[in-house]
Amino acid sequence: MIAYRLIQKKRDGAELSTAEIDELFRAYAEGRLPDYQMAAFLMAVYFRGLSARELAALVDVMLHSGAVVRLDDSPGVKVDKHSTGGVGDKVSLVLAPLVASLGVTVPMMSGRGLGHTGGTLDKLEAIPGFRTDLTLAEYRAQLARLGCAMIGQTDEVAPLDRRLYALRDVTGTVESIPLIASSIMSKKLAEGIDALVLDVKRGGGAFLPELDLALELARTMIEIGRAYGREVVALVTAMDRPLGHAVGNALETEEAILTLRGEGPRDLRTVTVALAGEMLALAGAVESPAAGRVAAGAALDDGRALAFMARLIDAQGGNPAVVEDPAVLPQAPVRRVVEAPGDGVVVAVDARRIGWAAVELGAGRTRLDARIDPAVGFHVTAKPGTVVARGEPIASVHAATAADAERGAAALREAIRIADGAAPAALPLLSHRITHAGIEEWTAVG
Amino acid sequence: MIAYRLIQKKRDGAELSTAEIDELFRAYAEGRLPDYQMAAFLMAVYFRGLSARELAALVDVMLHSGAVVRLDDSPGVKVDKHSTGGVGDKVSLVLAPLVASLGVTVPMMSGRGLGHTGGTLDKLEAIPGFRTDLTLAEYRAQLARLGCAMIGQTDEVAPLDRRLYALRDVTGTVESIPLIASSIMSKKLAEGIDALVLDVKRGGGAFLPELDLALELARTMIEIGRAYGREVVALVTAMDRPLGHAVGNALETEEAILTLRGEGPRDLRTVTVALAGEMLALAGAVESPAAGRVAAGAALDDGRALAFMARLIDAQGGNPAVVEDPAVLPQAPVRRVVEAPGDGVVVAVDARRIGWAAVELGAGRTRLDARIDPAVGFHVTAKPGTVVARGEPIASVHAATAADAERGAAALREAIRIADGAAPAALPLLSHRITHAGIEEWTAVG
Repeated sequence: MIAYRLIQKKRDGAELSTAEIDELFRAYAEGRLPDYQMAAFLMAVYFRGLSARELAALVDVMLHSGAVVRLDDSPGVKVDKHSTGGVGDKVSLVLAPLVASLGVTVPMMSGRGLGHTGGTLDKLEAIPGFRTDLTLAEYRAQLARLGCAMIGQTDEVAPLDRRLYALRDVTGTVESIPLIASSIMSKKLAEGIDALVLDVKRGGGAFLPELDLALELARTMIEIGRAYGREVVALVTAMDRPLGHAVGNALETEEAILTLRGEGPRDLRTVTVALAGEMLALAGAVESPAAGRVAAGAALDDGRALAFMARLIDAQGGNPAVVEDPAVLPQAPVRRVVEAPGDGVVVAVDARRIGWAAVELGAGRTRLDARIDPAVGFHVTAKPGTVVARGEPIASVHAATAADAERGAAALREAIRIADGAAPAALPLLSHRITHAGIEEWTAVG
Repeated sequence: MIAYRLIQKKRDGAELSTAEIDELFRAYAEGRLPDYQMAAFLMAVYFRGLSARELAALVDVMLHSGAVVRLDDSPGVKVDKHSTGGVGDKVSLVLAPLVASLGVTVPMMSGRGLGHTGGTLDKLEAIPGFRTDLTLAEYRAQLARLGCAMIGQTDEVAPLDRRLYALRDVTGTVESIPLIASSIMSKKLAEGIDALVLDVKRGGGAFLPELDLALELARTMIEIGRAYGREVVALVTAMDRPLGHAVGNALETEEAILTLRGEGPRDLRTVTVALAGEMLALAGAVESPAAGRVAAGAALDDGRALAFMARLIDAQGGNPAVVEDPAVLPQAPVRRVVEAPGDGVVVAVDARRIGWAAVELGAGRTRLDARIDPAVGFHVTAKPGTVVARGEPIASVHAATAADAERGAAALREAIRIADGAAPAALPLLSHRITHAGIEEWTAVG
């Protein structure tokens, strides 16, 4: 293989053969191709994209760079959910126990927060004792016994993806649809799923804010799944404002537990129930996504989902008392209320701004090896469309120091825009449903 | 500096500030920026280009990464020529002594052959004893004493360019006009010139075959020169077929000497005289390029240029007897004549094909540290438009072994296309003259 000729080929818009993709990425995985040649190739991919054939070849070499889990011990159709990432997105903490409480096996490998977005692992680890670092053997055993496990991507799964992601992160090549899609799907295929539901975020707080790119990403992942015989359904959801009220790890875990109890913010419940409906339908547990939504709502309201969460936490070493008493979670020493500066209507709650402000408080990380403070974050009750009066509380800051709290409050005042009489221009919470058959508007979904 | 943000900025089509370009490339020069980030940046430049301001900043940091030679010891305007590279392009070996024989100081730093093209240093070194590795002190002293020196780019001149070129070579980022232009111009500005003539090749044997790209490259280099107060004039010349007859180092040196004697192939003389006319005019030695062409033709015909070449060879340690007796040059053991396979007209002589065939004989290199055989190569008398009869000699192969000679002959039979009655579609030898004022067709040049 002459690597620079393959780089030139991609650069010039030609299609590489399956053997060429395989050779190039295998050489990188084995340390025979230097980082600088892969960096140039990835930047050429950023500009030229990948054909369906090239993408399939890349997923294949990434998937087989590590262990591919088989979950034959667990009965039925195994279904996971993946979100493209957002601010206040604690859906997984509600969804996994909810769907598992209805008898469907949910194997879930999640990530950590990066950039302005949070990560499921960090939220789970806010629960004292909770272990996300199960071995693959422990993961398989818990799935067979309990029907749900929530863990981090182990070193054994798709190690090539980890190396590629680290390189993309420092070379300006993260924001490429085929590279994002192949990264997600190679990990999901390796974890042992039969079907997958995607929560594709759009709006200012998403990694790909534009709808057309969100749809393209969804379609790309659906096609990859199809090539491996896995059914994939995607919902497009709003990430112009945070989901729910809480932003920050322990605060989000608390809000997830509230939602499992049938309380919690309406938008979080709506998105979670919609995703649960798709998962239940894919698993064949219900006749249709609509029937799945009904079943999921019932399991939230009658305590089954919450009870499952307690068993899940217990199984992974966490303190299950947290489901009854959120005071078990770490608490920030300083709390500061933010009040509306005037009368009016909330026209925007900038998710990205709030996400970065949470990182500055210590809730997130800008490098994968940075430490976080699980207790800090925001509680933002204001939503686009909320009518507020001057002096009314619209949010609160949970911080380590008074100075941090002041900076956090200033950031919230910038992020929450209030206007006199102007109509908010927020995105619909759920807007599209995408399957291999095509795209439906959510309002047309039965 | 956060390097990946600068990579993203370029990737997204935004303009970097002078300070950002300076910081990024200075960090690379000092080993603080890894190759993989520079590789990604260069690929983004391939797709997005560089603005005039970015280009000026890049040339500046490359120029000042090493020694900037001052030639105050030498009188008058110092003029060099640079060719973008081709097959059979031995112009420098004729041009430098020719222009210097007319009293103009010619400081010439040249390169080695790479890919399918030859390099002036390799041709000069075919002369027994000829040293191209003068120190900068020897270079300055010889220029002051003799008025001409022909050397390689020393380690002291633009070391950043050398590192960047090596990286571009293996990352598919060579063929970028701003990167080519900044590489050439930073070296030329560092060697101490006051003015520069460019021979911009086009056609299948050129690195940038398309006319529009050749013109853009010429304009880019002219603008860089202008920013440093150096006048630059470019001529566009044909590289669809080889220039002259000889391809291969000793063979080309022999042909250059023939041309200095007023003999030599017509096309080589025409291009050399045109470039000499521009150099003499830029130096103020004549009133116009046209007058310069007349003066240059006279110096070739009356022996002044040849006599100067003998002094130049002597000054740099070579055997000056070569100007009288080409048998001083290395001779290949095997010679094989190639005959026309049928009656007809030569419609094409594929320069790139012949260049690669010469590399395969051992005349060139595919890596900068490879060894070459100075004696081997081709002598191609057939030109587009030549009428040939079956069995008539059209070329010869000079090879190290009979097997090599057979392979070389086969390559020539492919490269030289003969058709019955079809008109050749060769490019005009000289087609455009470009100055900062604009582009003229060569037929309109007075």
